Amino acid sequence: MRAVTYQAPGEVQLDERPEPQLAARDDAIVRIEASGICGSDLHIYHGRVKIEPGFTIGHEFVGTVIAAGDDVTRVKTGDRVLGCYHTACGTCFFCLRCTYHKCDRMRTFGHGAALGSLQGTQADQALVPSANLTLRKVPEGVSDDVALFAGDVMGTGYHAVQEAAIRPGDSVAVLGLGPVGLCAVQVAVAGGASPVLAIDTVPQRLEVAAAFGAIPVHLTEQNPRQIVKEITGGRGVDAAIDAVGHPDALDLAIRVTRKAGTVVAIGVYAEPCQVHMGLVWIKALGIRTGHANVIGHVDRVLGMLASGALDPRPLVTHHTSLEDAPEAYAVYDRREALKIVLTP
Amino acid sequence: MRAVTYQAPGEVQLDERPEPQLAARDDAIVRIEASGICGSDLHIYHGRVKIEPGFTIGHEFVGTVIAAGDDVTRVKTGDRVLGCYHTACGTCFFCLRCTYHKCDRMRTFGHGAALGSLQGTQADQALVPSANLTLRKVPEGVSDDVALFAGDVMGTGYHAVQEAAIRPGDSVAVLGLGPVGLCAVQVAVAGGASPVLAIDTVPQRLEVAAAFGAIPVHLTEQNPRQIVKEITGGRGVDAAIDAVGHPDALDLAIRVTRKAGTVVAIGVYAEPCQVHMGLVWIKALGIRTGHANVIGHVDRVLGMLASGALDPRPLVTHHTSLEDAPEAYAVYDRREALKIVLTP
Amino acid sequence: MRAVTYQAPGEVQLDERPEPQLAARDDAIVRIEASGICGSDLHIYHGRVKIEPGFTIGHEFVGTVIAAGDDVTRVKTGDRVLGCYHTACGTCFFCLRCTYHKCDRMRTFGHGAALGSLQGTQADQALVPSANLTLRKVPEGVSDDVALFAGDVMGTGYHAVQEAAIRPGDSVAVLGLGPVGLCAVQVAVAGGASPVLAIDTVPQRLEVAAAFGAIPVHLTEQNPRQIVKEITGGRGVDAAIDAVGHPDALDLAIRVTRKAGTVVAIGVYAEPCQVHMGLVWIKALGIRTGHANVIGHVDRVLGMLASGALDPRPLVTHHTSLEDAPEAYAVYDRREALKIVLTP
Amino acid sequence: MRAVTYQAPGEVQLDERPEPQLAARDDAIVRIEASGICGSDLHIYHGRVKIEPGFTIGHEFVGTVIAAGDDVTRVKTGDRVLGCYHTACGTCFFCLRCTYHKCDRMRTFGHGAALGSLQGTQADQALVPSANLTLRKVPEGVSDDVALFAGDVMGTGYHAVQEAAIRPGDSVAVLGLGPVGLCAVQVAVAGGASPVLAIDTVPQRLEVAAAFGAIPVHLTEQNPRQIVKEITGGRGVDAAIDAVGHPDALDLAIRVTRKAGTVVAIGVYAEPCQVHMGLVWIKALGIRTGHANVIGHVDRVLGMLASGALDPRPLVTHHTSLEDAPEAYAVYDRREALKIVLTP
Repeated sequence: MRAVTYQAPGEVQLDERPEPQLAARDDAIVRIEASGICGSDLHIYHGRVKIEPGFTIGHEFVGTVIAAGDDVTRVKTGDRVLGCYHTACGTCFFCLRCTYHKCDRMRTFGHGAALGSLQGTQADQALVPSANLTLRKVPEGVSDDVALFAGDVMGTGYHAVQEAAIRPGDSVAVLGLGPVGLCAVQVAVAGGASPVLAIDTVPQRLEVAAAFGAIPVHLTEQNPRQIVKEITGGRGVDAAIDAVGHPDALDLAIRVTRKAGTVVAIGVYAEPCQVHMGLVWIKALGIRTGHANVIGHVDRVLGMLASGALDPRPLVTHHTSLEDAPEAYAVYDRREALKIVLTP
Repeated sequence: MRAVTYQAPGEVQLDERPEPQLAARDDAIVRIEASGICGSDLHIYHGRVKIEPGFTIGHEFVGTVIAAGDDVTRVKTGDRVLGCYHTACGTCFFCLRCTYHKCDRMRTFGHGAALGSLQGTQADQALVPSANLTLRKVPEGVSDDVALFAGDVMGTGYHAVQEAAIRPGDSVAVLGLGPVGLCAVQVAVAGGASPVLAIDTVPQRLEVAAAFGAIPVHLTEQNPRQIVKEITGGRGVDAAIDAVGHPDALDLAIRVTRKAGTVVAIGVYAEPCQVHMGLVWIKALGIRTGHANVIGHVDRVLGMLASGALDPRPLVTHHTSLEDAPEAYAVYDRREALKIVLTP
Repeated sequence: MRAVTYQAPGEVQLDERPEPQLAARDDAIVRIEASGICGSDLHIYHGRVKIEPGFTIGHEFVGTVIAAGDDVTRVKTGDRVLGCYHTACGTCFFCLRCTYHKCDRMRTFGHGAALGSLQGTQADQALVPSANLTLRKVPEGVSDDVALFAGDVMGTGYHAVQEAAIRPGDSVAVLGLGPVGLCAVQVAVAGGASPVLAIDTVPQRLEVAAAFGAIPVHLTEQNPRQIVKEITGGRGVDAAIDAVGHPDALDLAIRVTRKAGTVVAIGVYAEPCQVHMGLVWIKALGIRTGHANVIGHVDRVLGMLASGALDPRPLVTHHTSLEDAPEAYAVYDRREALKIVLTP
Repeated sequence: MRAVTYQAPGEVQLDERPEPQLAARDDAIVRIEASGICGSDLHIYHGRVKIEPGFTIGHEFVGTVIAAGDDVTRVKTGDRVLGCYHTACGTCFFCLRCTYHKCDRMRTFGHGAALGSLQGTQADQALVPSANLTLRKVPEGVSDDVALFAGDVMGTGYHAVQEAAIRPGDSVAVLGLGPVGLCAVQVAVAGGASPVLAIDTVPQRLEVAAAFGAIPVHLTEQNPRQIVKEITGGRGVDAAIDAVGHPDALDLAIRVTRKAGTVVAIGVYAEPCQVHMGLVWIKALGIRTGHANVIGHVDRVLGMLASGALDPRPLVTHHTSLEDAPEAYAVYDRREALKIVLTP
């Protein structure tokens, strides 16, 4: 079968690989019908996240179950399914607390040996371990493009809003309007946050956020801190979501959040950095961090996608065949796309 | 000044009363510009809730502050304001836990000596104690009809959904589509619940619920239990809200809720009744009850009314002058109205 | 092997049964070294809970793993383990929300076909499905008598206190001082509840509760409602735990709980009954019900048993060999014992 | 009357001051019978926190109400009371969310114009605004030394544990065993945390922590990270409390906390600093910060002090008369005392 593999920084290619085989009794094999390219894939593409040359990449997927082990009960051969970006054991200390994203035995698709040696999903087929936790049936009427978001990007937006611990009527600022930020905007609006401010520098992304019901704020041409003050009567937002993963974004999130509010750093941090702990402390902020617990959220996200309460289609800017994956990565790398969907 | 007073079961009249005077330093006097007739008023009208003949009734109000004590800081003379249905002390055991609806010194407008001897708001003016907690400025652009809901009916719908402890994407059934039930439907939808089922016997109310985004279910012409099963894959809804206050509604709420789900009895109960505790127990349900904590919710509700996320205008079926209050009560009693707004 | 089996109301006997065999890959076989007789066993003994004649009973156990399927990772052959009273799948809707006690595929040991046809643990050996969730290693230094409580009775006391949603310094009343009630007392005290009132009619049980740090209150010789009032300044306790499962206990729990407080019905209800919903409603109580989520609590309970923060040894009144199980049931039925431990 | 006043860095003196007079209707005047010297006072003493020369310092106090405004209802003249370290308005956005420590109108005793120009309590008398929120009656049998802790240091320990969001049986590490750290240790143990590790470099403090039920760990002579690993099976503690307020402490807290756990920075931060956000993020930690919400906790803390569940007496190392306050500050500055109580 064909598979998109990492070769070297800036270089991916389409390789021929053997078809996957069932190993454990809760494994499934999925014939991939759509796979997304994600910001995390770009970290690999840039060589910042190290994986073995030749490893198949990709972790967002929709497809059809073509084989399933005896213990797979939630889906069956022939089912159209979507996958979460990682597996979970369901029985460790962390799974027992429903923090599946920190499972002691989790494996992430397409991230090499460091994250469990699980081949990626930008391929004709994929082996899916712990299928009862990782796969869900796609509800009737939900397209591939939409379902693709449930197990990764929209699940991450949902997670960010969940961690913000807001109630309907609370105010939220989202910093950074890549796919995750835009999904967070949509979940916040759908969950009754009001107002939702969306901050970025790219006019098109601000327009999408506005169409989703947010108040768009240009990071540099406008004054986000001043605008937050005006809109919140000088108080600051109840929660700010940093969907960038950069100390400057974190700092702005800290500054625009009200006393005793919450900052959610859903953007990726990998290094030590300067944080104005004095300001955090005097404001008595709470800070939440980390990957998204998509397995914990996927059923709710799917329901909202099915009802139309969430609709990520405006984020899908490109469709490409698997053959053209190398070019698609180049396009994505030039920031010309929000979400590229690869189809066979 | 003029005031609508209770006289006897089935009899209210417009009386002349002296204008209220400031007594405590956190009192305000509000010139009433709109006051609603509520289901609770009907309990008084029917004589089921006993109050003294001659007592001024009404507890929903919008108006303008015409006098304020020295300690009133959140609003000032000239402000257009809305009120909550009750006062709170802000310092007792219950206020310290933000359960203002159970304040040890709470007084409810227009409910006679039993609830604090606080004259009602269906009048030209009203004395408002604990004004810092009870009053809020009406945001720009919010009409009287809309603002009127913040401190009572929509606040109660918000409370019901809050107690349901749901997250975006969870399913909800609302039983009983009077004003509170319809407000609960609207809050649930605005808060991302999906699906929201709305159950009643009155076609017009089912239509309003459908327009608010709910799935309407006729209580007797359809089979609510069967429909809930079909929609939830046999499981039941995550939460059911009983906005009726009758053992049959509670029983249905218990039956349509999934294992480990939540039943919220926001409808009023005043008597002992039969509850299928065996069913409650084997399903491990949680049950939440009681009046709404509107003071705890009013800022969020107001924000959502201002943004249009909540819009109760379809519930306002009648506008009447204070003079015609007796006739308005008769109309309301004949169930010909959802919400009647009295204006000077 | 030998197994205690239900025969008819009031009749259990020691039978010879074939040794269990591994079937699923996450099964384990445990050689039983201690098994408790529980109030639930008495319901079977009385014929109120129907099971098939000849079915092996018992669901509390400590022992040694003598065989384990390939997917069993949390324990291994030779490990000294304790079990939870039921199994769980780890992947259904309810397990995904950490409500393992409502798992769609749960099976309860020793409760016949109605609860999953899983033979009981009052036997020489037991088959333990979903061993990764159901079994835990017994920590060093924890005796059989103590470990036995983690997966059932103490887990249930822990659950009751957890559902009470109290914080250190909150007041609690426990109604009914059987093993579950006494365990709830101990967990409440260990968790910082203060004061903890313990209500029953049996002097010895009141003494045990007092030794655990509670204020003992005789149900009929004293006036529990009056005493609660005096101790709480007239307000009522923050939470009351009904460990009886009788409408009178529920009614008393409702009456002694403060406004906006919580009533936990951990005692078993199987029938409809009269509940003073008017009182519940005007006090705005929350009610929590159902079986205990012991799989969700067992690690914490075990830690507290290991540290001595919890110590159920005063509850163990009898040790008996498996041969004498029929007599032990008769003793338990005569209410002459709190906890009887059966050993081989 | 006499009052301890700040003069210059390293210099406090006993001055004569006019007795305070009631101004607002919810003011009270308290004759001070005991006042503590706190770590915050030391910041003033060192000149790091700037206040006006001549300002009366101190914010922990027990005494007797000698005058009260008409609106003071929770205490009355003649009552023996304790105070919280700050006032609150009870009606602002933050008070309405029970976050009294971030009240928009809060004033802190003895901290100069920057925190509300409220004279301190190391004096013969003190003016206490918002007395209904700030004062509590001292329960029978609670000594001055014990009551003194409720409104500041023990309230802060309680807050730290509350923010840690732990349940009975969860593990906790407390870093820094000054008075706040030791109080946090005591609250954690009293609330059922197990195990509680207590980390510091001072042997006497480690001994006190051990006497409170914690596992003492010497910061430099032992290896805290290694010990946490061993005790938690390699996983890390569920929550770590940084009671130091230094980047090194925060870093250690981050390192010893398990994935998806909580770090509480109760120690004071005033500056930007380096935080290993990469580590925080990959572990998906939550961080909680800020002053303690003692008004929100004081009733529970008082109850636990009255029952003996909490007992801070081992922390009181010195008693001194008001006259000797200058020497007492010098002693405290030399770290020769844990808690010094000033009496008239």
